[in-house]
Amino acid sequence: MNRPREALAPAVPGTAATPARVALLGVGTVGRALLARLAERNDPRLSLQFVATSRRRLQATAGLAAAACAEALARSDGPRAAPPSLASSTGAAALPVCEPHDGGGALPAHFGPGDIVVDATASAELAAWHPRWLRQGLHVVSANKLGLGGPLLRQHEIAQLVNAERRYGDAATVGAGLPLLATLRQLRAGGDRIGAIVGVLSGTLAWLFDGYDGREAFSDRVRAAVAQGYAEPDPRVDLSGEDVRRKLLILARTAGYPLESEEVRVDSLLTPALQAAAAGEVDAALRGLDGPLGERAARARGDGRVLRYVARFDAAGARIGLESLAPDDPIAVGRGCDNRVAVWSSRYRERPLQIQGPGAGAGVTAAALLDDLLRVVG
Amino acid sequence: MNRPREALAPAVPGTAATPARVALLGVGTVGRALLARLAERNDPRLSLQFVATSRRRLQATAGLAAAACAEALARSDGPRAAPPSLASSTGAAALPVCEPHDGGGALPAHFGPGDIVVDATASAELAAWHPRWLRQGLHVVSANKLGLGGPLLRQHEIAQLVNAERRYGDAATVGAGLPLLATLRQLRAGGDRIGAIVGVLSGTLAWLFDGYDGREAFSDRVRAAVAQGYAEPDPRVDLSGEDVRRKLLILARTAGYPLESEEVRVDSLLTPALQAAAAGEVDAALRGLDGPLGERAARARGDGRVLRYVARFDAAGARIGLESLAPDDPIAVGRGCDNRVAVWSSRYRERPLQIQGPGAGAGVTAAALLDDLLRVVG
Repeated sequence: MNRPREALAPAVPGTAATPARVALLGVGTVGRALLARLAERNDPRLSLQFVATSRRRLQATAGLAAAACAEALARSDGPRAAPPSLASSTGAAALPVCEPHDGGGALPAHFGPGDIVVDATASAELAAWHPRWLRQGLHVVSANKLGLGGPLLRQHEIAQLVNAERRYGDAATVGAGLPLLATLRQLRAGGDRIGAIVGVLSGTLAWLFDGYDGREAFSDRVRAAVAQGYAEPDPRVDLSGEDVRRKLLILARTAGYPLESEEVRVDSLLTPALQAAAAGEVDAALRGLDGPLGERAARARGDGRVLRYVARFDAAGARIGLESLAPDDPIAVGRGCDNRVAVWSSRYRERPLQIQGPGAGAGVTAAALLDDLLRVVG
Repeated sequence: MNRPREALAPAVPGTAATPARVALLGVGTVGRALLARLAERNDPRLSLQFVATSRRRLQATAGLAAAACAEALARSDGPRAAPPSLASSTGAAALPVCEPHDGGGALPAHFGPGDIVVDATASAELAAWHPRWLRQGLHVVSANKLGLGGPLLRQHEIAQLVNAERRYGDAATVGAGLPLLATLRQLRAGGDRIGAIVGVLSGTLAWLFDGYDGREAFSDRVRAAVAQGYAEPDPRVDLSGEDVRRKLLILARTAGYPLESEEVRVDSLLTPALQAAAAGEVDAALRGLDGPLGERAARARGDGRVLRYVARFDAAGARIGLESLAPDDPIAVGRGCDNRVAVWSSRYRERPLQIQGPGAGAGVTAAALLDDLLRVVG
């Protein structure tokens, strides 16, 4: 019996004729920036059909107009609050609805193999869904560091599940699209053994220590960082070093070392009082940083050195904390929010390979998510 | 009529069952380092069957033992000088012969679609063959900058010919495998427009100006660079800036700008006397550099600046020459033979993406060639 080939092999989503359905989870600053880029790019191979925050969701099988989603989710105060203009210009068969939901990994039932979930949240609950989505044949594109930087078992599961039909995009998880993870993979593919990775992995902490010599109050710098959007509204997320821990875990695991979270020694910048402070007391408790950090900075200045919050992984283990470095140390150079990472390998034994650049911020992170989306359909 | 699928689709070379035949052209320091890496890796998907210098060649359809080729070519003084041990351990059906040849693009007749030519020469004649090889269905892996950095028409031809079945590996042409060209392509694939590229692209010139402040004779540094293998035996190849010109052309073209060689303004470091010197007079003529360069370095030192030989490409055009930079300029940092490149794009508007590391030398260049070989069969 001869059957046409098309009947045997259903079209794989990701072409202009059969676009991949895209679900975006998380509409914070990164999610909003991605919506703006999707609207600008308007790629026919991608059909945005589902956008959800932790409380509201929009969906339309004919495609959502990316540009209007963020606003609709922000202003909706109940079900069916979205205006008709949300439907994509390519077809408006189903009006989108903006309705409350219970969070979690629930995607529309018609999402299936070849479609794409973008996780632009920092949710541990959603990160646990990454392997399950892959098992369902979906591609996952993640800015959520807890997918690959959470429990080692999950990272291992994801690595086992990924293949040409089920991709996992992680460019946005470390360095916001700087060519870090791709380069580590490339070195290993060429037979290189990665020996050490050293870096400034937090844009926020880079900014806080760029030019800080102890003569001004560190707490004022933190407040300025929050005011300018360089730090989270609760700056303890950055100051604790936990965000850096996840990034170092992702780098080390990508370099071939199955590191558990507990194996990374993190010297938090938080004082016990700051750690224990209720939300309203954080600002006052920040002052507790000024004395100890001011002293360390003055000592570094006296030695002609500078302070940097550094993540290190090498034969001696993995550790994260404040270091006093020579100003021309590869890791000490760099300005503002720049991330910088140095990699030593069998190929780069004496002088490391170094990659540096803006590694934080909604714009570059969203650009990295779009890179990964285009790699899936490209 | 039903025929087995295998009969319809001949096996594509590049698997352990049907390895890709590999021809290596050029057995200078890079070619030798590649032979050593091939011997160490011993990948069953690659079968080295042809190795040629401009005057001698070795071939064996059963595969050559990479480790012994360089030595055999070096010591051979006539046809059939190669010892039997040259045959690969996987089979020794045909004894390799080391015979004189007339150079050029002639490959063994049995090389065909799916097989790989590695050009580890700097030959303009061989670079002209790159598009022809691609047209024959061969993959090309090149350290020869004249393939993509020669006439614009050739680069355009190569770009048109490349597809999934005919790959062109260029990682070794700029930065010796530093993730430069791959990163430019990735940025463009994500919709980025590259606005400017600035870099120190010559490991030799980086070494010569690292720490040079005019107090020692520049000619002594050049002699030291030649003695230590950082510069070519005739250092004019490096000092002329022509090597940097080709690299900047490859970067700019990869960034999407169809630049002709003549559009790059190159300020050569050579004096007229040095340029005109016969081979035996070069060493004496080097002294002519000491006065003018010493003065420039002293002036830079007085201004608290450093000299670097910089390649720039931006809206104002492309130019290459000596510049006086602030010591913390992104392009001024870096040590020894380090290449460093800064890229500004629509994504990296304020702070550039920077990539730095050893970008010259036989070891890293051969590693980049092997990366490309493995990408072809991977």
